[in-house]
Amino acid sequence: MAWSLKKTSEKAGLPPGTLVHIGEQKTEDIRLTLIDFDEVSLEQREPDTGEDFGPYVKKPSITWLNVDGLHKVDVIQKIGEAFCLHPLVLEDIVHTEQRAKVEDHEDYLFFVVKMISCDNETDVIQWEQFSLILGDGFVLSFQERPGDVFDPVRERLQKKTGRIRKNGSDYLAYALLDAVVDNYFLVLEKIGERIEALEEEVMEDPDSGTLNAVHSLNRELIFLRKAVWPMRELIGNVQIWESPLVHDKTNLYLRDLHDHLLQTIETISTYRELAVGMREVYLSTVSNRLNEVMKLLTIVATIFIPLTFIAGIYGMNFKYMPELDWHWGYPLSLGLMAVIAGLMMFWFRKRKLL
Amino acid sequence: MAWSLKKTSEKAGLPPGTLVHIGEQKTEDIRLTLIDFDEVSLEQREPDTGEDFGPYVKKPSITWLNVDGLHKVDVIQKIGEAFCLHPLVLEDIVHTEQRAKVEDHEDYLFFVVKMISCDNETDVIQWEQFSLILGDGFVLSFQERPGDVFDPVRERLQKKTGRIRKNGSDYLAYALLDAVVDNYFLVLEKIGERIEALEEEVMEDPDSGTLNAVHSLNRELIFLRKAVWPMRELIGNVQIWESPLVHDKTNLYLRDLHDHLLQTIETISTYRELAVGMREVYLSTVSNRLNEVMKLLTIVATIFIPLTFIAGIYGMNFKYMPELDWHWGYPLSLGLMAVIAGLMMFWFRKRKLL
Amino acid sequence: MAWSLKKTSEKAGLPPGTLVHIGEQKTEDIRLTLIDFDEVSLEQREPDTGEDFGPYVKKPSITWLNVDGLHKVDVIQKIGEAFCLHPLVLEDIVHTEQRAKVEDHEDYLFFVVKMISCDNETDVIQWEQFSLILGDGFVLSFQERPGDVFDPVRERLQKKTGRIRKNGSDYLAYALLDAVVDNYFLVLEKIGERIEALEEEVMEDPDSGTLNAVHSLNRELIFLRKAVWPMRELIGNVQIWESPLVHDKTNLYLRDLHDHLLQTIETISTYRELAVGMREVYLSTVSNRLNEVMKLLTIVATIFIPLTFIAGIYGMNFKYMPELDWHWGYPLSLGLMAVIAGLMMFWFRKRKLL
Amino acid sequence: MAWSLKKTSEKAGLPPGTLVHIGEQKTEDIRLTLIDFDEVSLEQREPDTGEDFGPYVKKPSITWLNVDGLHKVDVIQKIGEAFCLHPLVLEDIVHTEQRAKVEDHEDYLFFVVKMISCDNETDVIQWEQFSLILGDGFVLSFQERPGDVFDPVRERLQKKTGRIRKNGSDYLAYALLDAVVDNYFLVLEKIGERIEALEEEVMEDPDSGTLNAVHSLNRELIFLRKAVWPMRELIGNVQIWESPLVHDKTNLYLRDLHDHLLQTIETISTYRELAVGMREVYLSTVSNRLNEVMKLLTIVATIFIPLTFIAGIYGMNFKYMPELDWHWGYPLSLGLMAVIAGLMMFWFRKRKLL
Amino acid sequence: MAWSLKKTSEKAGLPPGTLVHIGEQKTEDIRLTLIDFDEVSLEQREPDTGEDFGPYVKKPSITWLNVDGLHKVDVIQKIGEAFCLHPLVLEDIVHTEQRAKVEDHEDYLFFVVKMISCDNETDVIQWEQFSLILGDGFVLSFQERPGDVFDPVRERLQKKTGRIRKNGSDYLAYALLDAVVDNYFLVLEKIGERIEALEEEVMEDPDSGTLNAVHSLNRELIFLRKAVWPMRELIGNVQIWESPLVHDKTNLYLRDLHDHLLQTIETISTYRELAVGMREVYLSTVSNRLNEVMKLLTIVATIFIPLTFIAGIYGMNFKYMPELDWHWGYPLSLGLMAVIAGLMMFWFRKRKLL
Repeated sequence: MAWSLKKTSEKAGLPPGTLVHIGEQKTEDIRLTLIDFDEVSLEQREPDTGEDFGPYVKKPSITWLNVDGLHKVDVIQKIGEAFCLHPLVLEDIVHTEQRAKVEDHEDYLFFVVKMISCDNETDVIQWEQFSLILGDGFVLSFQERPGDVFDPVRERLQKKTGRIRKNGSDYLAYALLDAVVDNYFLVLEKIGERIEALEEEVMEDPDSGTLNAVHSLNRELIFLRKAVWPMRELIGNVQIWESPLVHDKTNLYLRDLHDHLLQTIETISTYRELAVGMREVYLSTVSNRLNEVMKLLTIVATIFIPLTFIAGIYGMNFKYMPELDWHWGYPLSLGLMAVIAGLMMFWFRKRKLL
Repeated sequence: MAWSLKKTSEKAGLPPGTLVHIGEQKTEDIRLTLIDFDEVSLEQREPDTGEDFGPYVKKPSITWLNVDGLHKVDVIQKIGEAFCLHPLVLEDIVHTEQRAKVEDHEDYLFFVVKMISCDNETDVIQWEQFSLILGDGFVLSFQERPGDVFDPVRERLQKKTGRIRKNGSDYLAYALLDAVVDNYFLVLEKIGERIEALEEEVMEDPDSGTLNAVHSLNRELIFLRKAVWPMRELIGNVQIWESPLVHDKTNLYLRDLHDHLLQTIETISTYRELAVGMREVYLSTVSNRLNEVMKLLTIVATIFIPLTFIAGIYGMNFKYMPELDWHWGYPLSLGLMAVIAGLMMFWFRKRKLL
Repeated sequence: MAWSLKKTSEKAGLPPGTLVHIGEQKTEDIRLTLIDFDEVSLEQREPDTGEDFGPYVKKPSITWLNVDGLHKVDVIQKIGEAFCLHPLVLEDIVHTEQRAKVEDHEDYLFFVVKMISCDNETDVIQWEQFSLILGDGFVLSFQERPGDVFDPVRERLQKKTGRIRKNGSDYLAYALLDAVVDNYFLVLEKIGERIEALEEEVMEDPDSGTLNAVHSLNRELIFLRKAVWPMRELIGNVQIWESPLVHDKTNLYLRDLHDHLLQTIETISTYRELAVGMREVYLSTVSNRLNEVMKLLTIVATIFIPLTFIAGIYGMNFKYMPELDWHWGYPLSLGLMAVIAGLMMFWFRKRKLL
Repeated sequence: MAWSLKKTSEKAGLPPGTLVHIGEQKTEDIRLTLIDFDEVSLEQREPDTGEDFGPYVKKPSITWLNVDGLHKVDVIQKIGEAFCLHPLVLEDIVHTEQRAKVEDHEDYLFFVVKMISCDNETDVIQWEQFSLILGDGFVLSFQERPGDVFDPVRERLQKKTGRIRKNGSDYLAYALLDAVVDNYFLVLEKIGERIEALEEEVMEDPDSGTLNAVHSLNRELIFLRKAVWPMRELIGNVQIWESPLVHDKTNLYLRDLHDHLLQTIETISTYRELAVGMREVYLSTVSNRLNEVMKLLTIVATIFIPLTFIAGIYGMNFKYMPELDWHWGYPLSLGLMAVIAGLMMFWFRKRKLL
Repeated sequence: MAWSLKKTSEKAGLPPGTLVHIGEQKTEDIRLTLIDFDEVSLEQREPDTGEDFGPYVKKPSITWLNVDGLHKVDVIQKIGEAFCLHPLVLEDIVHTEQRAKVEDHEDYLFFVVKMISCDNETDVIQWEQFSLILGDGFVLSFQERPGDVFDPVRERLQKKTGRIRKNGSDYLAYALLDAVVDNYFLVLEKIGERIEALEEEVMEDPDSGTLNAVHSLNRELIFLRKAVWPMRELIGNVQIWESPLVHDKTNLYLRDLHDHLLQTIETISTYRELAVGMREVYLSTVSNRLNEVMKLLTIVATIFIPLTFIAGIYGMNFKYMPELDWHWGYPLSLGLMAVIAGLMMFWFRKRKLL
């Protein structure tokens, strides 16, 4: 579940730039989808894994090649050669334990980010590495498994009038990253709902299951923050670098994306503070309950122990116990007990114990 | 209640710049108020939502257009077109989950801040997004619901001699932001009163309701800080940018506003520290009480259990129990019990348990 | 008591620069003292509140006007006009909820700091806002109540040979701020003594009063830090600005003052860490005591409950209970009880419970 | 075990640059291995400790001299003289308590880092200081004990076609540091496995051993962070310095290394947060168990104490106790007890105590 | 013991530059030692407190004047005049509550640092202020009490061949500061030993004494950090300033000193984290013990209370109690009790309470 605890040891000692797929294989087949478009025409198809993409590099139209599945390193290698990618870049694409980052390789920018989605039925958060290459006239995107996150982008591409058709590859790359960040909001919203449910539960009737839920919520927020935190810096860097690949007009959109990331991070840290608060409420509820239980025990025991002692006294078998022979001995002893019990309850009430 | 937990998912995947109102609809009708003034004359009226504000853009007088209610996106769209606002700006105005920020769009500055007010009867804090466009000769302000926050500004505008009539649109924008920040102080003051009441309660007679109150106080402070924190940076940025829209003379007032924000933030963090302190006092009070209860139980049980045991001994039915036949057996046994009880109480007193 | 929780709401919505006294009135009359001096002569008197100070502005000698009491805004207004102060400055002087700050108004520097003093009898810390205007040839100081903090400065002024007579108004301003900071040390020293007493108490015989004392100590340190923290930045700013009002020679003294402030802040944070430590010692002492009490109860109950059970057995009234008729039945049963008690005590000792 | 608690006092007062071996001696003999290579040829051998390495300094081929064992300072001294190293550098090499750092000595760069390895059987983390000198055409490496960490690098060197043969000494130095950092991942992976096992244990059936394991885990993470934290800065510095010893091409690889270090640090801090979480789950589990135990005691005691009291009443020996003579007295008393017990259980169930 | 809680109030209000000795007098007599040396000759003697050091200022040889004892301000004053020191510098030398700092007075650098030493018998840490003036050709050092910290430096000075004789006054100053920092390591080592002993104790058999030891350890670390923290900045400043008094060659040694300070600070913060860890282990051990004790009480009480109740039943004196007359009544009742006890123990075992 937690992507940060997976195996990375297999690579220790190998020369840098060696292509080894690290990570769980999340899809059976590797699937390519290619969209090549300019303002007037658009071509969409699923190319063969062996196809040579060389021609697309030189075409003035914008090419978007999406790869679902990273476990076949030879396919990745071939695409890398066609688009002249550095071996370290290819290595990072198939090594799915990367920290989110952006690298400027002059001819292209290389983005790695974490994509998250929330399974609608089980509420389990699923992690996936998403790599993106933004070149002059092409965008390459690599996902670990097929998904529907980019369907809206594809739909917008189909519409001839959309802004996305009129802008360059940088705007397309922005649109893809924006779709990834939009998914963060979806996940945060789900988590927000869980927090609201938990806050009610913790106030009203918490049990140890509540605390476990708070704990696993906290755990998820730790991993979420770890994933999102470096992205803020990443988008900030792209804005500062003034790479010729990113036009001024797109920078405005990146600023918007940066704002969204800041908001995501602040929401995560607000959620973590709420989780801390819930934990504290839970603990003091538990300690209040213990107090209640102990108070009950103390009251019952403190009242009855002396009474039982008196009964014990008159249960002794001494020959010469004058009270035993009194005619009113029994009612008197009962009366004594009632008086003692009454005084104690009065004292308890005064001490606010009852 | 908590504005950060609301739905933002409806927009995921839509192209940026799409106008969709996100957030609760807080007013039935959208209401516009327009004030157009210069040093000598002032015109105030409630224009139609369909009116064309084009002419006001060019007029040398200063125009302030205030919009209450954001749910009719076509009205916002029309105003945006009249004043040449960027689609992303309009999108942010109707998307009421924004983080406080300022953007420099050359022809105008775009501010988004959170406006808070405290319901006088229920003490519930109400959140609202307030957007402000400062252009050359015009100020546009957008609120989610009608309110009386800006009434003092309107009154000052009515007075011909006021400083606000002699200064430009930047001073008007400052006056509006200042009114927003002044409301923060009002809310903080209310919270301060609650803190003082809670501090007394927690010292004297805390119950679990006290802790819940401290907890929900803390929760409110978390959201308050989240709202105010980015504003500090925002005003700082405007001071640094030296935008031609903000005159040097106004910068002095912005510095004052910046000071107020710093004070707000410091007060919030002081309040949070006080809340932490209250929680700790509460917890140690609870643990003291548990100690008291347990000490009571221990003393009563420890004294009576041996006495009851002695009574039990002489309640046994053995045939040959010489003590039972002694004439002074009963008083002697009672005396023994008294001595044991006395010794124990003496020992308790020495150990400071009694 | 806590200056940060006072009313500031009265001003919400008023135009900036409106003079309204905010804060408790701490003195009945407003009192002015004026000292005008140069290297050879010195004039000291208590001018009328209505006096015109215009002539002093132009005189080459150095003028120090001290104002005790801020509740009569017209007096402040008149002084402000004589020395050409900005309305925002006057507003901040009479609004006693300011954050410590320094502002460069070209013709003068405006300082606001918190002055604290410790009542010698009640140990209560008293807060006061101190404003200072450093102009070319004059120093204005505003206090909320009359005090003896500046008496040593006055005495040094009387002596013709002192450094203070030979230096400009900047040195006088430094001397006044230095006197304020020296008072911080006095207060910290008092707090240090309380901490030492509390540390001893918490180690030896803490009760819930101890914790309340630690708590209110912590509370005072929170407010102290809030007051002193911005001053560090303030003096740092003056050193960096290279204002023509502050001579190089005085900068050396400001560096000394800056060091003192750093030391104050570090001492405050050290004290806070000590307070945290005391709280932890207290809590573990309390939990140790609970353990002791529970151990006592457990030992007594665990030993006597089985014995009482045995006594109960032989207190039963069955017709055929052979042991009851044994001649040695009674001593044997007592012996059995003694053996059981002995074994249990042995086991307790082995488990280190006794 | 913890390298930071070892003796460093032996050196106090000695002049700087004095060679004294500080640290545990971890190997018996000092062993040198030398690899001298260029693109076409490679020489590998184990030179004598007394050999003069002077000739290798001038040779255009790249020389890698590795030293295992630091306790013979004269050998280190001799090597230092041959390669013209500064006395402070030699002192740091044999003083194994160094903080990770890099120093630019113009003719060479001096790196000190911590190398860690995890014993496969005992899971004990072993610490070692690794020093590296990167000169023009040579690389010196110093380890405390022989190890197999650099075997993959040696294998890559054997292959004529590898990148490592074509690049300069800076690439070799990078390869060695990369091997060290790869080992961090191996250790983190082991720790990650322990965390997963502990998380399960703490959720299901924690005992005090679990907490001790969490505690020692935390302790190891503290030392790990202390070792890795300064390395981030170290690699960053090398990237910034633009030393002529490090070529632009290698800088790309250093950036990759920097990313790995960032990931290491983030993983460590994530692990520490997980450890905090586990501790909290453990503590609340313990406090839940206490609650359970106390609830059980309270229920049993509260039900039976009143019943026993009633039995005690009818065990009294008063002469005139009418109930004792009733024919249905016994069943009636038993019935009374059953009713009381029933009522109490009903009340417990209503209060959710049962 | 804690230098930060001492009296500083005596000086409040005095003009700056007034020489008043603040702090405990730690030696009876003031003692001067003077070493004047160049590469070929060295003169060492104990001058009179009244001697005029003027001639040494001009001599080309390097003069080191060490002063033990600061309570005679006239001696300090005289030395200050001979070497032309600023009054504020002299004031700081005799005011032993300074924060560590360095000041550039053009003709000389003024250092104030805290010197610590650990009494070998009592393990008490002793604090002392050490001031150092580095001038062109002279070094003045001021200690509060005589000590042997600088003996190794003196010995190195005696040796004609040492580096210290060939370098200027800056190297001597470095050597003295290095000796001070080396003593930090000695103290940290002692503390490290105490931590190791405490960690073992806390794991195996902690009592309230253990916690007090952890607490006072933490207290010492707070003061240590307060002393060392500003020194890091201090040495950093000297490196940046490029004062003509510090040669480039010495800068290399200062970098080494800076590294040592960073290591000291990191070790202190590691120790504090270990102390936090120990406290947590202690607290959970205490809470585990409470659990154990309560479990024991619960088991004993829960088993015997019902049995005693049964015995109570058959101890009742009703006339018509058929069981009492049964021949097998007694063994049957004992059997019933055994069955109940057995069932309960079985249930306890199943619930893992036993």
